[in-house]
Amino acid sequence: MQNQDTLQRLKTIDGHLRGIIRMVEDDAYCIDVIKQVQAVQAALNKVSEAILKDHLSSCVTTAIRGEDPNERARVLEEITDVFATSQKN
Amino acid sequence: MQNQDTLQRLKTIDGHLRGIIRMVEDDAYCIDVIKQVQAVQAALNKVSEAILKDHLSSCVTTAIRGEDPNERARVLEEITDVFATSQKN
Amino acid sequence: MQNQDTLQRLKTIDGHLRGIIRMVEDDAYCIDVIKQVQAVQAALNKVSEAILKDHLSSCVTTAIRGEDPNERARVLEEITDVFATSQKN
Amino acid sequence: MQNQDTLQRLKTIDGHLRGIIRMVEDDAYCIDVIKQVQAVQAALNKVSEAILKDHLSSCVTTAIRGEDPNERARVLEEITDVFATSQKN
Repeated sequence: MQNQDTLQRLKTIDGHLRGIIRMVEDDAYCIDVIKQVQAVQAALNKVSEAILKDHLSSCVTTAIRGEDPNERARVLEEITDVFATSQKN
Repeated sequence: MQNQDTLQRLKTIDGHLRGIIRMVEDDAYCIDVIKQVQAVQAALNKVSEAILKDHLSSCVTTAIRGEDPNERARVLEEITDVFATSQKN
Repeated sequence: MQNQDTLQRLKTIDGHLRGIIRMVEDDAYCIDVIKQVQAVQAALNKVSEAILKDHLSSCVTTAIRGEDPNERARVLEEITDVFATSQKN
Repeated sequence: MQNQDTLQRLKTIDGHLRGIIRMVEDDAYCIDVIKQVQAVQAALNKVSEAILKDHLSSCVTTAIRGEDPNERARVLEEITDVFATSQKN
């Protein structure tokens, strides 16, 4: 997976996270820190969605249209797994 | 979608939810109510996971192996949508 | 905790959940079922928020203004607990 | 808020995030990237929990034991807000 959009988003999020580290170093108000952490998490949700969308239309589609039943089962199980984890985050 | 397992789980969850209604009627302690509400939500997560798993290996697989590109795009977009919502719940 | 608003919301959610059970019995499309389950979870989030809000301004405030340090610690730990679980649901 | 533990956790998470950026640059498998993003989010959940816990026993306790009703209302509303957002992340 090489994706300029994903890469750019992750770098922006990393800048955001480093900003939070400075906030904590500068003794910022707890609630302001928590709100910024939550903003980073929402931005990471968007990254996961974009990656999953690409993955479904590329790797998953190829595997399901292919003739290897194990490979088909594998890609589908991965989708269920990341969905299950997304509900717990 | 007709699934005895899903149906049974949902009926159990409904019993749980009616128990919570009785707790509120009986003036139960707030935190105990919230914890039961959270337990219902965790159980609903399991239902969604089970439904999605079945859906992927049936409808989604059929659509992707089929020859209609619109239908393929449609089923994949639905997966991305429920994944996006699952992250916000 | 006795709250007419909470009670009414929970009864509405129960009606919604019984509607989902009928959808499954009637063989509804998987994704439509998942979307309704997610709507129930979002409504339950609102219930938890409303209960927590009341709890903070009543029980928690009373405990923290009281003179029992164990009781104060207890109510605060409960808040941290439900917060932690809310992040995992 | 100045907290060595929080600071250390955030720096570790930042290292994790920069590792994900390298994974994307190196064309890693989509699902592996999503799983690492989810691991970062789970770690950020722990940070928020730890900050909230400290905040409750310091600022919130002080405000609620104080005599300014506006200040009391303000700190409680902030808790409800971060709880509401945590449910949507």
